[in-house]
Amino acid sequence: MTRSPWAGRFAEDPDQAVQDYTRSLHVDRRLAGYDIRGSRAHVRMLFRQGILSRRDRDRILQGLDQVEEEIRSGQFPYRDELEDIHMNIEVRLCELVGEEGRRLHTGRSRNDQVAVDLKLFCLDAALGWQEMIRRVQEALLARARSLQRELFPGWTHLQAAQPVSWAHYLLAYCDMFDRDHRRLAGYRRLHSVSPLGAGALAGSTLPLDPGWTARELGFTSSFENSYDVAGDRDFLLELLQIATQIMLHASRMAEDLIYFSSTPVGWVELPESLCTGSSMMPQKKNPDLLELCRGKTATVLGHASAMATLLKGLPSSYNRDLQQDKEHLFPAVDTVGETLGILTLVASRMRVVSSRIGPALERGFLTATDLAEHLVSLGVPFRTAHEQVGRLVAYCVKQNRTLRQLSLREIRKFAPRCGSDVRGVLKPEGALDHKFHSGSTGLASIRQQIARWEDRLRSHGNGNNSREDQP
Amino acid sequence: MTRSPWAGRFAEDPDQAVQDYTRSLHVDRRLAGYDIRGSRAHVRMLFRQGILSRRDRDRILQGLDQVEEEIRSGQFPYRDELEDIHMNIEVRLCELVGEEGRRLHTGRSRNDQVAVDLKLFCLDAALGWQEMIRRVQEALLARARSLQRELFPGWTHLQAAQPVSWAHYLLAYCDMFDRDHRRLAGYRRLHSVSPLGAGALAGSTLPLDPGWTARELGFTSSFENSYDVAGDRDFLLELLQIATQIMLHASRMAEDLIYFSSTPVGWVELPESLCTGSSMMPQKKNPDLLELCRGKTATVLGHASAMATLLKGLPSSYNRDLQQDKEHLFPAVDTVGETLGILTLVASRMRVVSSRIGPALERGFLTATDLAEHLVSLGVPFRTAHEQVGRLVAYCVKQNRTLRQLSLREIRKFAPRCGSDVRGVLKPEGALDHKFHSGSTGLASIRQQIARWEDRLRSHGNGNNSREDQP
Amino acid sequence: MTRSPWAGRFAEDPDQAVQDYTRSLHVDRRLAGYDIRGSRAHVRMLFRQGILSRRDRDRILQGLDQVEEEIRSGQFPYRDELEDIHMNIEVRLCELVGEEGRRLHTGRSRNDQVAVDLKLFCLDAALGWQEMIRRVQEALLARARSLQRELFPGWTHLQAAQPVSWAHYLLAYCDMFDRDHRRLAGYRRLHSVSPLGAGALAGSTLPLDPGWTARELGFTSSFENSYDVAGDRDFLLELLQIATQIMLHASRMAEDLIYFSSTPVGWVELPESLCTGSSMMPQKKNPDLLELCRGKTATVLGHASAMATLLKGLPSSYNRDLQQDKEHLFPAVDTVGETLGILTLVASRMRVVSSRIGPALERGFLTATDLAEHLVSLGVPFRTAHEQVGRLVAYCVKQNRTLRQLSLREIRKFAPRCGSDVRGVLKPEGALDHKFHSGSTGLASIRQQIARWEDRLRSHGNGNNSREDQP
Amino acid sequence: MTRSPWAGRFAEDPDQAVQDYTRSLHVDRRLAGYDIRGSRAHVRMLFRQGILSRRDRDRILQGLDQVEEEIRSGQFPYRDELEDIHMNIEVRLCELVGEEGRRLHTGRSRNDQVAVDLKLFCLDAALGWQEMIRRVQEALLARARSLQRELFPGWTHLQAAQPVSWAHYLLAYCDMFDRDHRRLAGYRRLHSVSPLGAGALAGSTLPLDPGWTARELGFTSSFENSYDVAGDRDFLLELLQIATQIMLHASRMAEDLIYFSSTPVGWVELPESLCTGSSMMPQKKNPDLLELCRGKTATVLGHASAMATLLKGLPSSYNRDLQQDKEHLFPAVDTVGETLGILTLVASRMRVVSSRIGPALERGFLTATDLAEHLVSLGVPFRTAHEQVGRLVAYCVKQNRTLRQLSLREIRKFAPRCGSDVRGVLKPEGALDHKFHSGSTGLASIRQQIARWEDRLRSHGNGNNSREDQP
Repeated sequence: MTRSPWAGRFAEDPDQAVQDYTRSLHVDRRLAGYDIRGSRAHVRMLFRQGILSRRDRDRILQGLDQVEEEIRSGQFPYRDELEDIHMNIEVRLCELVGEEGRRLHTGRSRNDQVAVDLKLFCLDAALGWQEMIRRVQEALLARARSLQRELFPGWTHLQAAQPVSWAHYLLAYCDMFDRDHRRLAGYRRLHSVSPLGAGALAGSTLPLDPGWTARELGFTSSFENSYDVAGDRDFLLELLQIATQIMLHASRMAEDLIYFSSTPVGWVELPESLCTGSSMMPQKKNPDLLELCRGKTATVLGHASAMATLLKGLPSSYNRDLQQDKEHLFPAVDTVGETLGILTLVASRMRVVSSRIGPALERGFLTATDLAEHLVSLGVPFRTAHEQVGRLVAYCVKQNRTLRQLSLREIRKFAPRCGSDVRGVLKPEGALDHKFHSGSTGLASIRQQIARWEDRLRSHGNGNNSREDQP
Repeated sequence: MTRSPWAGRFAEDPDQAVQDYTRSLHVDRRLAGYDIRGSRAHVRMLFRQGILSRRDRDRILQGLDQVEEEIRSGQFPYRDELEDIHMNIEVRLCELVGEEGRRLHTGRSRNDQVAVDLKLFCLDAALGWQEMIRRVQEALLARARSLQRELFPGWTHLQAAQPVSWAHYLLAYCDMFDRDHRRLAGYRRLHSVSPLGAGALAGSTLPLDPGWTARELGFTSSFENSYDVAGDRDFLLELLQIATQIMLHASRMAEDLIYFSSTPVGWVELPESLCTGSSMMPQKKNPDLLELCRGKTATVLGHASAMATLLKGLPSSYNRDLQQDKEHLFPAVDTVGETLGILTLVASRMRVVSSRIGPALERGFLTATDLAEHLVSLGVPFRTAHEQVGRLVAYCVKQNRTLRQLSLREIRKFAPRCGSDVRGVLKPEGALDHKFHSGSTGLASIRQQIARWEDRLRSHGNGNNSREDQP
Repeated sequence: MTRSPWAGRFAEDPDQAVQDYTRSLHVDRRLAGYDIRGSRAHVRMLFRQGILSRRDRDRILQGLDQVEEEIRSGQFPYRDELEDIHMNIEVRLCELVGEEGRRLHTGRSRNDQVAVDLKLFCLDAALGWQEMIRRVQEALLARARSLQRELFPGWTHLQAAQPVSWAHYLLAYCDMFDRDHRRLAGYRRLHSVSPLGAGALAGSTLPLDPGWTARELGFTSSFENSYDVAGDRDFLLELLQIATQIMLHASRMAEDLIYFSSTPVGWVELPESLCTGSSMMPQKKNPDLLELCRGKTATVLGHASAMATLLKGLPSSYNRDLQQDKEHLFPAVDTVGETLGILTLVASRMRVVSSRIGPALERGFLTATDLAEHLVSLGVPFRTAHEQVGRLVAYCVKQNRTLRQLSLREIRKFAPRCGSDVRGVLKPEGALDHKFHSGSTGLASIRQQIARWEDRLRSHGNGNNSREDQP
Repeated sequence: MTRSPWAGRFAEDPDQAVQDYTRSLHVDRRLAGYDIRGSRAHVRMLFRQGILSRRDRDRILQGLDQVEEEIRSGQFPYRDELEDIHMNIEVRLCELVGEEGRRLHTGRSRNDQVAVDLKLFCLDAALGWQEMIRRVQEALLARARSLQRELFPGWTHLQAAQPVSWAHYLLAYCDMFDRDHRRLAGYRRLHSVSPLGAGALAGSTLPLDPGWTARELGFTSSFENSYDVAGDRDFLLELLQIATQIMLHASRMAEDLIYFSSTPVGWVELPESLCTGSSMMPQKKNPDLLELCRGKTATVLGHASAMATLLKGLPSSYNRDLQQDKEHLFPAVDTVGETLGILTLVASRMRVVSSRIGPALERGFLTATDLAEHLVSLGVPFRTAHEQVGRLVAYCVKQNRTLRQLSLREIRKFAPRCGSDVRGVLKPEGALDHKFHSGSTGLASIRQQIARWEDRLRSHGNGNNSREDQP
């Protein structure tokens, strides 16, 4: 068993049960690349500041290359008794380069080392999500373009409300994910602060240059207060909070599509390649994908909630509780990425089943509001118009008829101001043709939205994703 | 690629991204043993009911033995494209025994199959926790026995309150964990109901005998309603809720001990074998173990919360969201088990540092309440006594003195009824010698508690753990 | 401003901001009744033990009567500066009866006083919920009785699965709520332990008799360890965990009914008296009630999660954090009660719309599983039968036909063993007539379930609700 | 009973239980001011667009003034049967101005109406928190200025780590709260989008001008997609997420101070005016304020978690579940505000007790790291230096001595390179005098931090808080 590099003052080794309970190697080995990147910057800085000789620096850098290669090729000898990836790399480095390796950790603590690894990881994840959101939006936009005039019975409370264009519906999700995109941009600005150099909690008596390592690692700036850095996981919690929001958007879309494609509704059909079957019931074609998206949302919410609970009432600076952060961060990051990929697929391949939507547009009195607004344009106060149409609907319900099946005379019994032009008002297509203001489901608004999205996403196609992220 | 057994009606195979998103094999392979146990019972029942021939039954049972052996020896060919452990086992069985294997899933759905696997797993976990709680209690009791007369400055609000015996303190945790133990007993009674035979949601047209499989698998009874069973995860959520409670108890004990062993306090010392060091600060000996216990509590809380969120507003019967249950169940179950083991270690090995506690017992006016009660026994109304002693304490604070450093004359300026016997009231040891009622920290009460616990845990030592669990 | 009874040692009064931040009177005044009940028992015990004179006892009891009457009649002078209901009552008592009132708090702390109030409240709430669950079950049973032969297209994954009887569906919820009922019975057994006499954390030097007050207050037993009692809120957390489970059941039923009554489905109709309308859309009749049930579930889950978070890593014994418990307990308790009442209404008054269900039973190949099982009875291995029927379904989908619309010849192209008796297998009514085993949706099973529920609920009607709760 | 304005199509009124379950008036009356503000803008826009006559507009505006006055003066006749504040105001308006009032709701739904009220509320709350954060920071900065050279034994894992300046400690919290401040600035930019004009979900056939009302109400822009707006509560969830982060910072500070002021530590003392006493224990002076801060953090976390759970898997557009949002928003907003106020008080008034800190600085080997770094400067590889000092510490522990109590000869037995200048390295004051790099606890760094904070907060004093918030 290899002894821990910190074991100088210890006469006893940790009990096996303690090693099992405290080890994180199986989780944090994922940070190896970031750890090496941080160490390279650190070592270069130590040399620049005259703390390491050129020879020491070069030996360490060579050793880190070798470690990286061992990890890449699967040859790296992971050792659980060395707790985490950080100790594993340092010990291996010493084995490879000898004495010089023992100079790597100069002026550094695992506290700032872990923080820099995690920050780089989180900032990369945020950038990756932005990219994937753009792809979902592109898929939604492409479908929206071809579904501008296709209506469905828009709902509130899952009850028929007003006709809505599929394009308008899909673009609503573009807007939701765009808020996430913009939060991620703000996130990347706020947290681009390097923690390297903060040491355990108080900095170092050696002449470190934290500003230099910050720039070397691509951060915008360096920490202002080492004590803050030692216990800071704000950047990790905020990423989980944004993950929560992204998943909530995804879960609402999943819920819609599960409903739309459920047997008695059938307005949307998913291709077989996005469904799975049943071990017992031969006829089944289930939208498991979407259900899992909904279920995984619960999982991500749990991780965000756990992370906040973890931090509640924790004493300041570093406490080992923080080690659990990665158990919540990693699965959440993976799930968000995979889910955005799945939504791109679903948005591209789902089929709108007009033959089943058509009859549904005739039910549920979807144009009742338009009729009330028509009465307003004839001078009736809205509240009165609402009442008149409400009574008319009650009449239809009793008779089991639709508004369009009524005669003008019947309509005028309830809404005396109506003239024969009321017919045009009762068509579902009025949703597209009679709504003019911006943001509505009217055709003019939809075209405006599409043009705007084409413009926004064009810069993405040109690889300019990050431009808008600048302060 | 092996095709799914449910793929009869499918012309297309699932997209790779769908397979990745929906697979659970990496998680649910842990259920293999329970799955095979359930299949054995099912097959025997099918034979008893005349649905399978003896030859079919025997071939399947042999095949299941072989599958089990392959899994045990690491030879089992896991295939991700077959989604989960259930499909993997069935397909492998068919490869091994041919045609007969295709009869295994008769009158069964993955819905009831998964439910039976999970229930067996959960009931075993509950029994295991009961066992481990007994071990923690034994460790606490052993320490309590030897620490009956050792006092420390008991706190409320982390402010010195009254002297408390270490034995009393440790036995309080015996009580907390005992509530968990009794909840687990109730849990095992409530959920010992077999789901096997419920099929997908409606049962089967074949003449199954769910009662027989229930008994064969050790359940107390069989399901009463197949529709209920299809979507029931109550047993899983309740186990996570009990896990939450156990971890909360553990986390409070961890918090206490982190505080007690912190540098400026030092009332408790942990052995080096239960501590770890720092990569930067050579002098450090940190109670990482206890911090992780606290941190892992947040993780378990997150899992319980995620599981409830998952179920919220889910349509009845089976939805694929439920697949996520295992991602919350398994780590929570492991964490509870490991944590109880760690607490047993800590309770056995922590050292009470009397040399540092002694001086602390003189600070904080720990006997002020005893003094007020002494005044009550002299006829002073308690509220008046409280006020008199309160003013006396204020006087001491101003003078930076303790109650025992005051002269009788000074005391009587504030509490005129006091006589010279007040001296005896002001000793910390009064906590042991002047408290007589049951449940108090008085010595009589502590002895009573210890006797009671010895009695309770004796039956455990005799392997009779489960007797009290009978209805 | 009235000074706090604990202010003896204080020269300064709390800052106004502190008073605002720490007061709980607006919340805990709800406990007044329990507080007085606890005080009465305490005072009687003090007399029995010779700590109070008969005269003191009588004066205090009279004073408590008067306080109770003032509260009942709205005359009680609540004072925020006295923090909480406990101090308010004590101070008011002293105003009413003078000197004797100052003896009430003898041998008691707010810690055990609050604990006894909260426990009595929680045990009452649990009993009340059991009663209300019985009422929901009665409503469900009554509907089930009249809907035994009415089918609907049972789903899994929201996709048509197998025909299910409405009775079977409703009885599934009887089972779910029954698990809650039994958990509540276990809860009431586990926590019927009086905390009175535990004092602040260590008990008292006065000769209290905690066992006597326990009996007087209706508890099964008295605390065993005062230190445990001081910080114990297990009983409160567990009640919130059970509340979570009850609400999850309610939310799933709400989700089902929102879906069933959504416009394009329409299998269930809610009466107008259980719906609300829209301020803009005149035709709307929304199931707001059920949506709120789902939404309030999130609220209750949040309260349970907050309570666990509150306790995580809290030092042992009493900390003021615990005061927040009531902010989570009270709304959760109210919500569960109201929700069970609402479900009783909904179960009684919702209408099953057979005219819309009939056609739906013909879609979705609901009898495909029965067909596969029919093939099993003809000797085909189930997995083979599943495949044959799967292909048959694919054929139907392509042709846009149902299984019943196929000729025998067509069927035999896929499933050669079929004979003409296959017709009977393809009728939805087979769900009732061809399923015989217990727990299935077959008619025999439904009748058995109804008989069992009638038996269970009969004892409830006779006021014997509590019999089953005995240990 | 007043009938609901939406009741045209209803023959039956809602059941009383339904009214009780669905009403939100007791909660949302708090939005009255925002509701009237939104209505004023809406009515002016309707006039500008030719939908209302000047006379109608003026009558409605007068009526709204009157309603506002009634609310302000407590004369407003709240009616529970009208569900919410929005219906209450509209109905009251109609009573006051007659027919014209019935035109107010033209082209509007409660969906966009509620959304605009809530958004205005949330944006105001965010601005208010920014202001209060600045006040906390000012208090922290003022204390930091006067505590630059005061040290305490900085900890990690609650074990003595390195000496840290109180100023450095306090400024760390300035940094934490500053991240919150900057998140709030980003929040206010992201969500300054008016929802008014989105109607129920699809906009209106009337010629509304949403851009005009947006400007009138002070929003930066107007919604782009009405369907998105109907179900959007992202702005509410994000505010709760930021609230979570603020409270977590507060709770960590509370935890620190509870610990620092606990009896056996005593490094900090709170004034009596920020403490409360015990009903039983006369000597108690408890930091209830800080404990409640910690406890209320759990409450806010619960609200944020509930809000996310509420939204999980909700169908798109408006569902009544959303009504619960206010039950989570309002208490969280109040709690954050009050807590920031309390922290300002505590930061200003807490007393650092140097007489108790002094001896503590000699314990825990706080300068061990400086010694190791000193060895580095003498050419020893850091890992070797760490080991040497580790062994030296072990030697001290065994001898129960401090590093400063050792002779140079003893030190050189473990760390042979040491010369006599090692004495200077072992003084706690080295933390201030030998740390030079930015962000460290060295004096130069602290002065730099203070200067920076003075600069940042100066603009606040000048009322320029909002300048930095501009895009």
